[in-house]
Amino acid sequence: MAKLLLLNGPNLNLLGQREPDIYGHETLSDIERNAQEKAATLGHQLDYLQSNHEGVLVDRIHQTLTDGTDMILFNPGAFTHTSIALRDALAGVKRPFIELHLSNVHAREDFRHHSYLAPLAVGVIAGFGSNSYALAIEAADHYLKK
Amino acid sequence: MAKLLLLNGPNLNLLGQREPDIYGHETLSDIERNAQEKAATLGHQLDYLQSNHEGVLVDRIHQTLTDGTDMILFNPGAFTHTSIALRDALAGVKRPFIELHLSNVHAREDFRHHSYLAPLAVGVIAGFGSNSYALAIEAADHYLKK
Amino acid sequence: MAKLLLLNGPNLNLLGQREPDIYGHETLSDIERNAQEKAATLGHQLDYLQSNHEGVLVDRIHQTLTDGTDMILFNPGAFTHTSIALRDALAGVKRPFIELHLSNVHAREDFRHHSYLAPLAVGVIAGFGSNSYALAIEAADHYLKK
Amino acid sequence: MAKLLLLNGPNLNLLGQREPDIYGHETLSDIERNAQEKAATLGHQLDYLQSNHEGVLVDRIHQTLTDGTDMILFNPGAFTHTSIALRDALAGVKRPFIELHLSNVHAREDFRHHSYLAPLAVGVIAGFGSNSYALAIEAADHYLKK
Amino acid sequence: MAKLLLLNGPNLNLLGQREPDIYGHETLSDIERNAQEKAATLGHQLDYLQSNHEGVLVDRIHQTLTDGTDMILFNPGAFTHTSIALRDALAGVKRPFIELHLSNVHAREDFRHHSYLAPLAVGVIAGFGSNSYALAIEAADHYLKK
Amino acid sequence: MAKLLLLNGPNLNLLGQREPDIYGHETLSDIERNAQEKAATLGHQLDYLQSNHEGVLVDRIHQTLTDGTDMILFNPGAFTHTSIALRDALAGVKRPFIELHLSNVHAREDFRHHSYLAPLAVGVIAGFGSNSYALAIEAADHYLKK
Amino acid sequence: MAKLLLLNGPNLNLLGQREPDIYGHETLSDIERNAQEKAATLGHQLDYLQSNHEGVLVDRIHQTLTDGTDMILFNPGAFTHTSIALRDALAGVKRPFIELHLSNVHAREDFRHHSYLAPLAVGVIAGFGSNSYALAIEAADHYLKK
Amino acid sequence: MAKLLLLNGPNLNLLGQREPDIYGHETLSDIERNAQEKAATLGHQLDYLQSNHEGVLVDRIHQTLTDGTDMILFNPGAFTHTSIALRDALAGVKRPFIELHLSNVHAREDFRHHSYLAPLAVGVIAGFGSNSYALAIEAADHYLKK
Amino acid sequence: MAKLLLLNGPNLNLLGQREPDIYGHETLSDIERNAQEKAATLGHQLDYLQSNHEGVLVDRIHQTLTDGTDMILFNPGAFTHTSIALRDALAGVKRPFIELHLSNVHAREDFRHHSYLAPLAVGVIAGFGSNSYALAIEAADHYLKK
Amino acid sequence: MAKLLLLNGPNLNLLGQREPDIYGHETLSDIERNAQEKAATLGHQLDYLQSNHEGVLVDRIHQTLTDGTDMILFNPGAFTHTSIALRDALAGVKRPFIELHLSNVHAREDFRHHSYLAPLAVGVIAGFGSNSYALAIEAADHYLKK
Amino acid sequence: MAKLLLLNGPNLNLLGQREPDIYGHETLSDIERNAQEKAATLGHQLDYLQSNHEGVLVDRIHQTLTDGTDMILFNPGAFTHTSIALRDALAGVKRPFIELHLSNVHAREDFRHHSYLAPLAVGVIAGFGSNSYALAIEAADHYLKK
Amino acid sequence: MAKLLLLNGPNLNLLGQREPDIYGHETLSDIERNAQEKAATLGHQLDYLQSNHEGVLVDRIHQTLTDGTDMILFNPGAFTHTSIALRDALAGVKRPFIELHLSNVHAREDFRHHSYLAPLAVGVIAGFGSNSYALAIEAADHYLKK
Repeated sequence: MAKLLLLNGPNLNLLGQREPDIYGHETLSDIERNAQEKAATLGHQLDYLQSNHEGVLVDRIHQTLTDGTDMILFNPGAFTHTSIALRDALAGVKRPFIELHLSNVHAREDFRHHSYLAPLAVGVIAGFGSNSYALAIEAADHYLKK
Repeated sequence: MAKLLLLNGPNLNLLGQREPDIYGHETLSDIERNAQEKAATLGHQLDYLQSNHEGVLVDRIHQTLTDGTDMILFNPGAFTHTSIALRDALAGVKRPFIELHLSNVHAREDFRHHSYLAPLAVGVIAGFGSNSYALAIEAADHYLKK
Repeated sequence: MAKLLLLNGPNLNLLGQREPDIYGHETLSDIERNAQEKAATLGHQLDYLQSNHEGVLVDRIHQTLTDGTDMILFNPGAFTHTSIALRDALAGVKRPFIELHLSNVHAREDFRHHSYLAPLAVGVIAGFGSNSYALAIEAADHYLKK
Repeated sequence: MAKLLLLNGPNLNLLGQREPDIYGHETLSDIERNAQEKAATLGHQLDYLQSNHEGVLVDRIHQTLTDGTDMILFNPGAFTHTSIALRDALAGVKRPFIELHLSNVHAREDFRHHSYLAPLAVGVIAGFGSNSYALAIEAADHYLKK
Repeated sequence: MAKLLLLNGPNLNLLGQREPDIYGHETLSDIERNAQEKAATLGHQLDYLQSNHEGVLVDRIHQTLTDGTDMILFNPGAFTHTSIALRDALAGVKRPFIELHLSNVHAREDFRHHSYLAPLAVGVIAGFGSNSYALAIEAADHYLKK
Repeated sequence: MAKLLLLNGPNLNLLGQREPDIYGHETLSDIERNAQEKAATLGHQLDYLQSNHEGVLVDRIHQTLTDGTDMILFNPGAFTHTSIALRDALAGVKRPFIELHLSNVHAREDFRHHSYLAPLAVGVIAGFGSNSYALAIEAADHYLKK
Repeated sequence: MAKLLLLNGPNLNLLGQREPDIYGHETLSDIERNAQEKAATLGHQLDYLQSNHEGVLVDRIHQTLTDGTDMILFNPGAFTHTSIALRDALAGVKRPFIELHLSNVHAREDFRHHSYLAPLAVGVIAGFGSNSYALAIEAADHYLKK
Repeated sequence: MAKLLLLNGPNLNLLGQREPDIYGHETLSDIERNAQEKAATLGHQLDYLQSNHEGVLVDRIHQTLTDGTDMILFNPGAFTHTSIALRDALAGVKRPFIELHLSNVHAREDFRHHSYLAPLAVGVIAGFGSNSYALAIEAADHYLKK
Repeated sequence: MAKLLLLNGPNLNLLGQREPDIYGHETLSDIERNAQEKAATLGHQLDYLQSNHEGVLVDRIHQTLTDGTDMILFNPGAFTHTSIALRDALAGVKRPFIELHLSNVHAREDFRHHSYLAPLAVGVIAGFGSNSYALAIEAADHYLKK
Repeated sequence: MAKLLLLNGPNLNLLGQREPDIYGHETLSDIERNAQEKAATLGHQLDYLQSNHEGVLVDRIHQTLTDGTDMILFNPGAFTHTSIALRDALAGVKRPFIELHLSNVHAREDFRHHSYLAPLAVGVIAGFGSNSYALAIEAADHYLKK
Repeated sequence: MAKLLLLNGPNLNLLGQREPDIYGHETLSDIERNAQEKAATLGHQLDYLQSNHEGVLVDRIHQTLTDGTDMILFNPGAFTHTSIALRDALAGVKRPFIELHLSNVHAREDFRHHSYLAPLAVGVIAGFGSNSYALAIEAADHYLKK
Repeated sequence: MAKLLLLNGPNLNLLGQREPDIYGHETLSDIERNAQEKAATLGHQLDYLQSNHEGVLVDRIHQTLTDGTDMILFNPGAFTHTSIALRDALAGVKRPFIELHLSNVHAREDFRHHSYLAPLAVGVIAGFGSNSYALAIEAADHYLKK
């Protein structure tokens, strides 16, 4: 059994309210609950946090040094493209992580094509709506069992 | 009667103390009080917030989904040029907003010539000192009456 | 009482006929007459000129050296992005001016995001349709009374 | 039951022989057989092709217009970054497709960070070794059931 | 009487099936037959080939060294933007050629604005749908009669 | 029967005198007369204008709003690469137009490879000397009969 | 006697745990205590703060307007490269400051070669591990005695 | 005896009024008269024209095909950096010309460092105030006597 | 005794026919025969292949995994600048290779200055006409004897 | 009477031997002697130095601090485009200088279009062959008499 | 006891004479003597050299292979931004070195923001006037004692 | 019999001492002696020079105008990427030359991928260690016998 941490970055608390044609109708609570259930099915425990504050996410990543987190599933939202602080935090704690996105960022504005985090990630999953979370949990499960 | 929200980004709390030759001598409190009065004169209610924390501004923008805000007047300061999170927040709540600046950003450093927010704004007003706020309120009044 | 000059650049004579979803239904004559009235209300005299010829606009700006113009309100249209001659003319006569646009140029093609004139302007107002003119006159009034 | 097509681009026939520390020890045959079994488990049929010839892949994509293919899973290898012909082929047949990669392309050379295909894809999965294929099949299954 | 060679690059075999709003409803066979008839009317013989394989097109261009081809009409499709091999083939056989496109490539994605072949062409015709072929034949006829 | 307008931009009045190895020996009058005859043969009326003044060309394009012009054939010369005002004029009058050039602009200096007008054109014809005009008239004839 | 403020940006709280081959084994507490002692030896008082929150650092910089701080020693970490808000804060309070780094940022990723803060600093010290702090205190001492 | 043509571009009519610290106190009339005298001293005739209209300058350059002009002295002002039409006009008439500037354009804004005309000029003289004209006449005298 | 593979990319079959002032008069057969003889003189066996098809070259490189090839001599022609697939093939088989060119690519168009293959090569030889092959064989001989 | 220093940079000692179609047939000695005579005619003394060594030129510029040089005439040759050391030397001694070139550098390779020295120069003269030196002396004479 | 080498690049011999507002009033001799004294205080021997000749500096760096130098303190002046030869020399002798500057290079022209040497340095100290030397000696002392 | 000149640029005197894993263990003397012997075997005389001073190399290249040198073999080291003076020297003396490198410069830092000299060279040989010299002599022998 592993301990997973699901992090969601800025504006993802709006899910279900915001541009449903792009992001679907599920709320963040739905997604977090479903993720926890999916993780449980695979025998893992899943903790989660969403924040619009970069510093809160950095702090939470730092906690993984001591809280037994085995792997991080991270939808960094807009911070994907602007936060070197989150990159350094992930590099600092040396926990494997998966970068995931609801939408296919490659089909959106140019500034969403670059990620500061992806070069350090195990892998990236983008474009499958809320199913991106389920896929990321499966990927984590497979990665940790290797 | 409409409900306006005036947001001020980082360092604007220093107004009246900071580089007065560029930004003038009025304090932020003067500006907020004057804005409220100007809005009242036009029959509108105006709420305001200044923060040096990007996340606090994102959170406040999210509140407009439920607090009846009709339009946002936003001087994003330095976040104009760096915050995709604020762009996504404004896109998420789908409230019309005006981007405004005290100084003429086009006459300053190159990195101040690009705005992540302006492409989503109704319009932009820059360079008129504290009068930029009065102009923005007039613009909002006109926009909402269309 | 001040003397204002309203300049409109290329294609603005098409107003009311050209892409009304972007530029509104008012004709240039409506705008010029309204501007004159607005100026009068504030105690100012307003002269105006529209031209599709860069040279005509340069010549007109030069005249402000001798005709008592106190401030220029300038919607340079396409010349915003291509005319260094107009920049030099404005620098040469040293009259304060406001750059204004009907549409939000930041939401349009990339080549409309750069202005040769804005770095010399008092300020910029863009995106409020024909109301941009009224706002510019108010801004000029305020600027001149400082 | 849906019909899936698994396409592999240039050099993927070397799998199991080539840089195993990056790509793992499974051969392409292993991957194709496992993919077929995974698809069968989910009730789908999976056809596959690998080619080092761009034109052969273009031709195969064209066949999906008439062979009943519902969705394409495509690891385009080096063609990801150089082939507009494959992009046009995928646009032409209008079949939904998933772009997938064994390695995390974002952690490799700069020229691997741009994809001509990803902007047209449903989504992208990269970095999970041969498990990327299993995840893509799950993603396709979920996508087709929506 | 001259001998013309009409070459069509990748995905043009999809014509009539693929994005008809952009490319029209005629099939490639219609276009090739019409081109042959148009050429015949002007007293010329026209041979043709379509291929999704860059190498096949290079080989066919090489054949013009010995098969008496006087001029090449070439719609290189996606290879316009990526194939230096085709450029070198055309330079090598020193046959005059016309680059032609169904769609107006200048109105599409940025990467379609650059052509490796056009600098060596007699001229370029783009944007007239299947009529681009008829115009190219007329242009060739005129060019060869000079 | 349609009404065509042939516009020629700066320096094209020099035709027959200027760099004949690039532009041929025909004068502009020859070209305009031949164009008129060609148009007449196809049942159309053709009006024409050449100017070295951007503003004169903008004004003439504006007239097409009221003079019954069905389509514009435009060799913008150097203005191709520098005039956003002409782009806006063509967008404003919403008349279909063909961009044409005597020389193959893609084989000349880099700054001639970009056109501000082409993205709005029906199509582009370049490189066929004075025959580019005949081809453009045929293209217009075909376009208007669709 | 002067009053110094030592600021440390995001992830520097991980010191001693994070990539010790790059950053050394001392903890942030060690560094802060040593800095305080070094400052005391030179007759100065040193206050300190570390935060992963950009806004907290902006707020703390603002306090120097009233708390008697004479000079700031700032290791901005990842914010060096992304925060215009911190630049504006430092410009606003007009306190002299030294930018310092543990590692030699010029020997790391390209995105660490640009600093938004350095152009406003008195000077920059980078690459000497925890000794960078001691050097910065000496530099401050010397600067303030000038 | 040769026939020289002195051309001055936009805003140069303001000389003596405009930014005298950069351009000196002589008026354009002074400069033109002095140039004529200097030319006469060297046995040449000098004609001159200033215009703020690019088209007027193009037209005047065209006249040199028939008016016996041997050489052009051209201070193109802002058109130096924006006018391909003037470049084409100068290339069309094939008259040798000297590009000259009052100020040292290399010491001013970046956009003044590129000239569309200089690559076709005999030479360039910049930075000597009104003496640049005298130097250009000497240079022309020497060039024509070669 | 070693086993060498000589690969020639697109259009090199035209040698002797194509631009002899750049590439010389020897045919590819001459070059291949001479290379075989030179290799034999040094005690090596040399196999060869030319193809205009990228996929054929990739396939042939793959065969070196099992056919005992010790080193590859590769003139990739136009594929030098466009083929990541060939780069990956060479990386995959891990055979040492020399990149060679008939012409001095650095003296030709800008797009010929970048090679996707050279960073993986032992070395590069360019500009010595058909003698480049002889030099490459000598270099291979020396490399293999080290 | 003023004291002038004529400096010539690398390869200018080859004058008269090197590419005479570009640089003329005069030797450097001719040029230096002519310059001295021209200076004498205007009442000035002229010293000169040519060197292929950047350091020698830097040293010579430093000497002007003590040898009474009033103005420097500098043809920096290739160092124009590469030497910040010469720029700093000229800035350090604060002597006015004129940058001059035999050829029109704007008509040559792109890397010759940028000068590290020109922004600090009084002015620039380029393209008049050995007459550039005579013109520079006249310009210096005029500059010093101002 | 260690042996230090202090190198100063071009124009630093002007210290005390050159732009004192930027570089201070101390002469290079003052600085060298003070450096020697500071080194002696810390128990080290310090040798020094200043040269305006890149080659002399390269030669001196090579001598450190045999003269027992333990560490180099290098103010490369303008060569910081242009000399790959010095970079290679430092890489070749593998002596640890500190790059130091009198002025804050980040606050000056853009071309002073890039250093060819810094990526190989132990660290960089810039902006503290002549105190940069004292700080560098302390940094060297600390580095060598580690 | 021909006369060859072997030039080695900066830091090549360190050969055998400097980064032997990249450059091998032979000293420069070994290389020069071997080159002389190899040249003698082919019936040629070979002179040589190494210098860390750009000016010395320029001077030596100039001597080839009078010393009977037929061809230059040049390993310019770091000057490859920075010296336009050497390019001009080689262009000035018009001697054929071969650019050679010990290491494969294309596999090293980006700034080593551009050569100012290569566009003027007969050809380039890079990556074969000291054998690059032997290959260059063979290439020169072959070139001179053509």
